[in-house]
Amino acid sequence: MVFVLDEESRKKLFEKISKDPFANYMGIKLLELGEGYSKLSMKVTEEMLNFHNVPHGGAIFALADAAFAAGSNSHNNASFALTMCINYRRPVKAGTILIAECEEESVGKSTGLYRIKVITEDGKLVASCQGTVFRTGKSVV
Amino acid sequence: MVFVLDEESRKKLFEKISKDPFANYMGIKLLELGEGYSKLSMKVTEEMLNFHNVPHGGAIFALADAAFAAGSNSHNNASFALTMCINYRRPVKAGTILIAECEEESVGKSTGLYRIKVITEDGKLVASCQGTVFRTGKSVV
Amino acid sequence: MVFVLDEESRKKLFEKISKDPFANYMGIKLLELGEGYSKLSMKVTEEMLNFHNVPHGGAIFALADAAFAAGSNSHNNASFALTMCINYRRPVKAGTILIAECEEESVGKSTGLYRIKVITEDGKLVASCQGTVFRTGKSVV
Amino acid sequence: MVFVLDEESRKKLFEKISKDPFANYMGIKLLELGEGYSKLSMKVTEEMLNFHNVPHGGAIFALADAAFAAGSNSHNNASFALTMCINYRRPVKAGTILIAECEEESVGKSTGLYRIKVITEDGKLVASCQGTVFRTGKSVV
Repeated sequence: MVFVLDEESRKKLFEKISKDPFANYMGIKLLELGEGYSKLSMKVTEEMLNFHNVPHGGAIFALADAAFAAGSNSHNNASFALTMCINYRRPVKAGTILIAECEEESVGKSTGLYRIKVITEDGKLVASCQGTVFRTGKSVV
Repeated sequence: MVFVLDEESRKKLFEKISKDPFANYMGIKLLELGEGYSKLSMKVTEEMLNFHNVPHGGAIFALADAAFAAGSNSHNNASFALTMCINYRRPVKAGTILIAECEEESVGKSTGLYRIKVITEDGKLVASCQGTVFRTGKSVV
Repeated sequence: MVFVLDEESRKKLFEKISKDPFANYMGIKLLELGEGYSKLSMKVTEEMLNFHNVPHGGAIFALADAAFAAGSNSHNNASFALTMCINYRRPVKAGTILIAECEEESVGKSTGLYRIKVITEDGKLVASCQGTVFRTGKSVV
Repeated sequence: MVFVLDEESRKKLFEKISKDPFANYMGIKLLELGEGYSKLSMKVTEEMLNFHNVPHGGAIFALADAAFAAGSNSHNNASFALTMCINYRRPVKAGTILIAECEEESVGKSTGLYRIKVITEDGKLVASCQGTVFRTGKSVV
């Protein structure tokens, strides 16, 4: 991976993204941030269950979306989600630690396309997503 | 709308869906529940903002997804999300009250298709979604 | 509906969209064009079947996508599809005439969101779609 | 890759999928078929252009969808598309040969999730898709 950003900017981005209020509210942790890449984790709590007693789709999406936001803003080009599609593949239990990874599929001047996978710690696919952002051209930090 | 369920079942469904842990964690309120229909509200709090200082896509999705779950389980046929796509159209400020409405587009033996809109109290479109569920044939209550 | 375009521009747009080569190759007919709206039809031929002997998803999508393109370019602002999601709800037989209608859900400076439904002549839902375009700001005609 | 099917079944599947009427109408060729995998090609003709004079989204989708159908039916379990989302990333010229590859992300008893990429011969991403099928449990050949 080519790092276009200097180390200070990357550090500032990592800090800013780590302080995302909603991600913190969900207990989401930013583990890694590369250019066009992110890796985050979240523990599924009892509060994240739904009325079927499995994790709420919205809780799993929150993790995937946090990864999408981190990955798509990692070039220090402020980017906002236009669309995001999630495919749910497997329920998990409360207490499970989920990992989300975001990878850049394609990036242009105005838009970018990202893939996000949510897996369990032992690698089982929980959800798979694709999302498109609008790139504003403004810096994040 | 034809109500196939008796009033007691509808009341039980309303109660069960109202007690959804994650919806409660997000301050989401179930306002109405019809067969193939739901209406919910959520106030955007400071904790729901992202590092751009606008509501996190995951918070808006949480409301939409809660509407999707309520609407798709409203026939007392336990249904699980397969896919959900969200299109974001407008940022809002912290303090805004959002309304989500779910409508059934089509329902078959094994799957159902739903449309969910998230709007502000004065009717501005914040997000528009489509979601597909797998219908298990088991009762919810 | 407010018509912002003068009659001559609307006529030119209708003609240009009617001559779309791929739509013609598929036997698709432009029936109506409003601002943010289109209605088209297509007869399902034997050539449009797949190896299961039902209409190919690609053939049904072609009609939906032609409606999406017509509707999203109807403001004479050249617009290109970023994403399009289709949900298939019902197979039909060869010989069936399908109708697609495109409606604008939301339009901004750079992007627009559209809903497209494909139905049979007697109103049964065959497919339902949502699509997002990037608006270039250049005129079509 | 583990081949669960015997060679004769795989050969019959390859033949049946190769004779798909709509794929043939579009000049689509089945190059490879594995279990949960397919690779196909299509030459963009003048007839596949749209009124913007670039390949119609419906033509590109036709190739992606043919790959999706081939890949998802490759286990000899008749599967029908529920949803398919396409993200367009790059226009190409008439005469370009496009390659589509379908990979299985996850497969369960009733549903399967697939990823499909459409690229140029020199590997540039034209479109990226995700699709979900309903698996009937009936054999294809």
